Formats: sequence, C-alpha cells, structure tokens
Amino acid sequence: MGRVTSRTPVLRIRGPVHTRRPDTVASEEPLEIRLSGRPLAVTMRTPGDDFDLVHGFLATEGVITSAADIAGLRYCNSVDDEGRNTYNVVDVDLAPGVEAPDTALDRNFYTSSSCGVCGKASIDAIRTKTAFDVAGDATRLTLETLLALPDRLRAAQQVFDKTGGLHAAGLFTAAGELVALREDVGRHNAVDKVVGDAVREGRVPLAGHVLMVSGRSSFELTQKAAMAAVPVLAAVSAPSSLAVELAQEVGITLIGFLRGDGCNVYTHPERLVLPDQLS
Amino acid sequence: MGRVTSRTPVLRIRGPVHTRRPDTVASEEPLEIRLSGRPLAVTMRTPGDDFDLVHGFLATEGVITSAADIAGLRYCNSVDDEGRNTYNVVDVDLAPGVEAPDTALDRNFYTSSSCGVCGKASIDAIRTKTAFDVAGDATRLTLETLLALPDRLRAAQQVFDKTGGLHAAGLFTAAGELVALREDVGRHNAVDKVVGDAVREGRVPLAGHVLMVSGRSSFELTQKAAMAAVPVLAAVSAPSSLAVELAQEVGITLIGFLRGDGCNVYTHPERLVLPDQLS
Repeated sequence: MGRVTSRTPVLRIRGPVHTRRPDTVASEEPLEIRLSGRPLAVTMRTPGDDFDLVHGFLATEGVITSAADIAGLRYCNSVDDEGRNTYNVVDVDLAPGVEAPDTALDRNFYTSSSCGVCGKASIDAIRTKTAFDVAGDATRLTLETLLALPDRLRAAQQVFDKTGGLHAAGLFTAAGELVALREDVGRHNAVDKVVGDAVREGRVPLAGHVLMVSGRSSFELTQKAAMAAVPVLAAVSAPSSLAVELAQEVGITLIGFLRGDGCNVYTHPERLVLPDQLS
Repeated sequence: MGRVTSRTPVLRIRGPVHTRRPDTVASEEPLEIRLSGRPLAVTMRTPGDDFDLVHGFLATEGVITSAADIAGLRYCNSVDDEGRNTYNVVDVDLAPGVEAPDTALDRNFYTSSSCGVCGKASIDAIRTKTAFDVAGDATRLTLETLLALPDRLRAAQQVFDKTGGLHAAGLFTAAGELVALREDVGRHNAVDKVVGDAVREGRVPLAGHVLMVSGRSSFELTQKAAMAAVPVLAAVSAPSSLAVELAQEVGITLIGFLRGDGCNVYTHPERLVLPDQLS
C-alpha cells in the first residue's frame, strides 16, 4: 500500500540557508475496527500491518486470546471522494463462542469502578486481566544481550531515518535474536502490531521473550506486555510510576534508559544475569 | 498535592558500576472526568493542574467554549484502601443550556462517518469543528523569536531534569513571552492543561499565540491547537502526515524539528518573518 511515509513541501531553515523542497513525513491515518459491522474503536495509526494491529489490539484488550478466536477479517469497501478503497476500515468476525465486548472499547476509555479511581486500587480497576502467568516465567538474559538490543532495534528500523517520526517496538528472544519489528506514529500501535504478529504466528503467551520500545514505558505499554505475557519490557527512555507499579505486581522485569553501556532496572532484576554472576 | 514525581528503588547499571538506590519517576495516575456524576472519560495523566486539564479537555473536544460554560467542578470523594481522597475523579456541572455529549467522549474514539474513514474525507469525519477563524489570524513572528523558544521552554521546565519522563507544552506570545507551561506523561494532557489554563483565564481564542510542544506533532495535537485557535504550532520533533494536512486546511502554521539554528516549516510560512524580510 506504500503509505508508511508521504511527501510534503517544506520550507527548510538551517542557519542562513533557507530552501523549499519536498520532505518525507510519517503517514498517520485513522483505522476503524469493527466487529461484525459494528464500530468498536478508531486508532490513529501508520498504515501497514493493519491485520497485525487488529489482532494485537483485540488481544491486549482481552477480547481474544489466540488467532483461532477470529473467524475472519477484511478491509471494508470504504472509499474516498474518488472511489478508491481507503483501507482504513477493518471488519472482524469473531469465532463462535467468543464474546464481543458490550461497549465501545478504547485504549484510553475504561469503565469506572464503583469505588472511583484510586492509587493502588486503580491498577485493579483499570487493567484488563491477563490469562497468563508472567510472574512464573523463569526467563534469564545476560546484561550483554540486553545492552545489545538498542543497536539491533535501530539497525532493523528502515523508516526511522527517513522521517524521524516513528516509534518502534521489537520482539526479541532472551538470546537477543530479533523476532519481529514494527513501527508506527503511535507507540501503542507499534506494540499492538508486534503482539498481533505473535498472536497470528501462535507464539502468545510470549514466555522467554523481551519486548523493546523506542520511547518511554507507560501503564498502557506495560499492560499490553502483561496481556501478551512478555516477561521483560525494555525502553530507551523513562517509565512512569504506574508502569513500575504494574510491572512489580504482575511480575514483569521493567528496564528503562537502555542506552550505551547502561540501563535502569526498576522491577524484578532477578531475570537479569550480571557479569559477576556468570560462571 | 506533590505527586508530580515519585520515588522508586532501582538497580542502576553504568558500565561496570552497579548500584541500588532510589530513583525519581514521573507520576502517572488515572483521572476520571464525570459530567453531573456520569463518567465521561478516563485519561492517564500526571497529577497536578487537574482543573486546567478538565477545562482543556472539554474545550478541545468541543463541549465548552469558555469557562462560563462550566457551572462548577470538584474532586469527588473517591478514597483509596486507607480512606484517603485520591483526587483522581473530577465531577463537572455544565452551565444551563450547555449540552452534554450523548456518548462517551474519548480522545481516541470517534464515531464512524457513514462513508467510512477515508483519506481526505477522514479529516472532516474525525475532527471536531472549531468555532474560531484560525486562517484569518494575521499574527507574524520573527525567525529569531521562534528559534529562541526551545531554550525558553526548557529553562521553564523544572520536572524534566529529574525524571526524563515528561512531555511539555508551552504557550508563548508572538513576541516570545512565556504565558504558561505544563508538563505531563501524556503530551495531549500537557496541551490540554495549557489550553485549559487559557480557557480559565478567558484568553481563548488564542489569536496571536504560539503553542510549543516538546515532542512530535500528531493529528490530535493539531486538532487541539485548532480548537483553541492557536495560529502557530511548533514542535521539537517531526509532524505526521495528517498533522500537516489538518494544519494546511485550517490555516495553522506548523513547524517541526525546531532546534538549534533551524526548523522545518510545513504549512502557512507567511506568518514567519525571515531576516531578509526585515526592514
């Protein structure tokens, strides 16, 4: 579909040099997800890997647990002013016995708990429960492997250097092998695409894997890692307080500021094998 | 309330040096917005300036156009396990005659247009209409003023250096004077807080102002700028394709990669006064 980036005219100013020329920007378009024709959610995403995105969104929202929960999915015949299919609407048929959520789902919309939304209790109120045991995952990875991930993620990114506008999410084995990489203007979409790819490949729960993201780690991303049962979540930048709380509670090893020769380990450092622990 | 940051134990690894110590992370907690007791939306935000956030959210979603549209707002008596108010639920009473939206509003949830969601038409389908004329705003600012904004924003940020985890939004006059600065784990919240402050101060429509954000500019941020009638939106990083399209259409000057001695001007460069245009 070739819409990952698009070209736009720009006035480029660098010191005394002013030039007018075309520039590349990351594509952002709405994707509407429907269940049997009924609108469920709209997310602003970079086109491409849309079926991965849909699988990942439904899995991390707790609607499906495997690819078998989806009977079929297809682009609708939504057309633009000139009659061309926009590929911006995907309709999903759930398999018999899989229950559709009874309200509009959205990544930022959570139904209210009766007690209100509050501190420790809020984590229970707003999070979707995972069916998997992340805390019991005995995965170990060496510090050397961990520190090598940012370069591997970056090397695998093709679009970033063109636009500077895309978030990346990479799934690695505990030995540091790249399993999947996805990019998007929305970091939650990049993670959904990686998780959705794993769902379609039958690899969820993702025991023994590391999820690496190019930005910060929020409650939402940690929640998605938990739903996919990834035991290690690593980010180039800082985590939020609620990301730390949730990771601690569900048993995820949460790593931040992973760059150069260092990182910060916020929770469950027992999965990380440090050099002085190597025999 | 002192919850903008919180402390958490961390294993800090820098080369051969491994230390366990407390570290500061940016606070992230849910804020539930209610209208007359009815849940409207939940956003994950950094506590602080919550009433600004509520005003800005309701204004940029098109529910209110001025502070007078809100009859009153207060924190609910939501309590945590130990009976303390969480300050995570705000209930709003709209003024008589102001219509509450009939469905749950959310920044990522848009109702479907009948034609589906598609290319050019999608901008109309998903955006809330602004009541203000941004295109007619005759604001001019010099390149020198523009290039000075990142340093001014950064100097005004107090929390950033502690956590590395907060997005910032700053409102400036066209002469480069800082009017308001807000920070948040969510960049949309930082913008809502700045806009909400302006709503409460009676400064909306924000003709003659510049909104500067620390990260990228998306469709969503451009939409918020349009709703507040800000004529210039400047970002440290890249814009998305839909941000460019929307800015072009509504008449916003969209600037990206604003750093050092340069920037990219994507739309409506006529508001920028370049050195060779100065008399």
